[in-house]
Amino acid sequence: MWLVALMVFLLAADARAGAAEKTTAGAIPIVAETMAAGLDHPWGMDFLPDGAVVITERAGAMRLLDNGVVSPPLAGVPPVFAEGQGGLLDVAVAPDFAVSRRIAFTFAEAGDGGAGTALARATLDRKAGRLDDVEVIFRVARKSRGGVHFGSRIVFAPDGTLFVTLGERGDRYRAQDFSDHAGGVIRLNPDGSIPPGNPFADGSNGRPELWSKGHRNPQGAAWDPVTKALLTVEHGAQGGDEVNRPEAGKNYGWPVITYGKDYSGATIGEGTHKPGYEQPLWHWDPSIAPSGLAVYDGPMFPEWRGDLLVGALKFRLLSRLDRDAAGRIVGEERAFADQFGRIRNVDVAPDGSIWLLTDEDDGRAIRLSRGR
Amino acid sequence: MWLVALMVFLLAADARAGAAEKTTAGAIPIVAETMAAGLDHPWGMDFLPDGAVVITERAGAMRLLDNGVVSPPLAGVPPVFAEGQGGLLDVAVAPDFAVSRRIAFTFAEAGDGGAGTALARATLDRKAGRLDDVEVIFRVARKSRGGVHFGSRIVFAPDGTLFVTLGERGDRYRAQDFSDHAGGVIRLNPDGSIPPGNPFADGSNGRPELWSKGHRNPQGAAWDPVTKALLTVEHGAQGGDEVNRPEAGKNYGWPVITYGKDYSGATIGEGTHKPGYEQPLWHWDPSIAPSGLAVYDGPMFPEWRGDLLVGALKFRLLSRLDRDAAGRIVGEERAFADQFGRIRNVDVAPDGSIWLLTDEDDGRAIRLSRGR
Repeated sequence: MWLVALMVFLLAADARAGAAEKTTAGAIPIVAETMAAGLDHPWGMDFLPDGAVVITERAGAMRLLDNGVVSPPLAGVPPVFAEGQGGLLDVAVAPDFAVSRRIAFTFAEAGDGGAGTALARATLDRKAGRLDDVEVIFRVARKSRGGVHFGSRIVFAPDGTLFVTLGERGDRYRAQDFSDHAGGVIRLNPDGSIPPGNPFADGSNGRPELWSKGHRNPQGAAWDPVTKALLTVEHGAQGGDEVNRPEAGKNYGWPVITYGKDYSGATIGEGTHKPGYEQPLWHWDPSIAPSGLAVYDGPMFPEWRGDLLVGALKFRLLSRLDRDAAGRIVGEERAFADQFGRIRNVDVAPDGSIWLLTDEDDGRAIRLSRGR
Repeated sequence: MWLVALMVFLLAADARAGAAEKTTAGAIPIVAETMAAGLDHPWGMDFLPDGAVVITERAGAMRLLDNGVVSPPLAGVPPVFAEGQGGLLDVAVAPDFAVSRRIAFTFAEAGDGGAGTALARATLDRKAGRLDDVEVIFRVARKSRGGVHFGSRIVFAPDGTLFVTLGERGDRYRAQDFSDHAGGVIRLNPDGSIPPGNPFADGSNGRPELWSKGHRNPQGAAWDPVTKALLTVEHGAQGGDEVNRPEAGKNYGWPVITYGKDYSGATIGEGTHKPGYEQPLWHWDPSIAPSGLAVYDGPMFPEWRGDLLVGALKFRLLSRLDRDAAGRIVGEERAFADQFGRIRNVDVAPDGSIWLLTDEDDGRAIRLSRGR
């Protein structure tokens, strides 16, 4: 026990910006650098073309990390519902940022009936330290009480559309209601309009924004260059965490089919399989509480190209789902358990280093690079 | 700490023959019955047609468990090298036992140069409590010092041949020497002769008994009715435990390619991939120390049909690798962690219940059946 305490102390002693520690992931030596410390439950991040990083904190601040310096909160972020799991959530830099200076971000928005996930876009004025032209381009149709299961992640797809993942707000049957967005993945043009190819574009069988339904609380998403598809990770009930590949118009089952069970131990729904409901690509039991997903595609760790990197709040680890050349999952490696904290997000920087956010009171942005 | 001690006490209090406890595997309620207790590091087991179970203990005893009664040691078991991981190892009941009364078993045999894995067959005289006509039908070509990595599991294939898995005796390059059996899987007729189809049957490029090479210490094996192939699990170095599907004449890589690293942290071999060396179907990091493999095919847990059940010495759990209808691994569920002990073997009884052996001083045979 004293050894654990000592190790916690030694790790804590290194949790300041600029600190670097040596560790390993499998057989690969890793240097873990604390690029920013003292963040208040950081949640989302993305890279600007010049290497600066935009980071959200759940309580409502968006900051830039630039050359080792964390900026004051950017002005212009709308008020957020910062209770429970709600707050300022993901941020994504538009693929055309170099010309448009646009970013997109999600947040829990308060309003009639409670709160719900919303998506905004804005332009970033770095010199002035503010967001301009902030525009909410999507809101979940119905706000509701409680502070759980807002999702959310934003993914820009190669075709110029964007996906947003949405939780079911703890009201599980919303995930099966196609007239509701909650518990769905939506697909939009960057201005919020409906792109061609959306499965319910005419609105007759479901909301036009919807791409897929039957999700519980997807908090990780990434475009997969291997299988040319969106991938998501979602929190299931106990033992039911999943990786999914959401396809147009399909139903991923929650709560009709699930691998999870209630925390009371009671079973949920009708089992694990049912015609008309899709299977996950992967599921974990015990749950790891996955939040944050990246498909590794950088030059620094060629061994990991095409693999899925999944942050885990529980066990405080990074799960690497090893994939073969065809994109099939063929192994799991769990790295950094209890070394850094609850891993809320994972992203791959342009140089191929892997960045993590730790969802802690004294949260950090950590850069993992290849050691010797 | 006192809580752990209390839990260990409570579990220990139930570890007598006849005791039953309720537990769960995922969402499925399970009854775990202790069918036999007080076994001395039980290692292998198999079911006789009438439901009795033959069980080996590593120190050298083979016993029958019949209607809740554990027999005295059967007479006729040859002397075994019971040091380190050596001793009396696996046992398998011949498919034609009803007429032949034959069983096969493996053991570490002492001799010139040290010890090596051997395979024997015998007929079982249940009334007399002894083995007759004991005949060693295979011996690893060269005995060597030390007490590690003997393997071994025996699998009868549907074509009437049998496979035996062999460890590399801690001398890793033996796994790459095709003039040696160690670190290989062999395939024999039940009388020890070479069956048609063995890849080195003429002896010119390898030992005629060999089926595959490049294994470190395979301690689990089963015939897979889904993919119609032999499956094995093997202990890798740290982070390199594997599921393999050994095919004729192929090289599974140890120690040229591996996902494991030395316990010193040093890398081993040339990485994880190399032309001419096969990839595992699955690998785990951290290692779980897998011993014992069954493909579930019984009536009691239809949800698990086709899934792989892997015993784990480390973490003392049962890993269920969930497979889809095509036999692809799509999830892992880890059950019973720390509930029973180091799980050395797992087998499916004719009624579909799942039996475990715990490799402990006070080892047990545990029957898992469906609860309510």
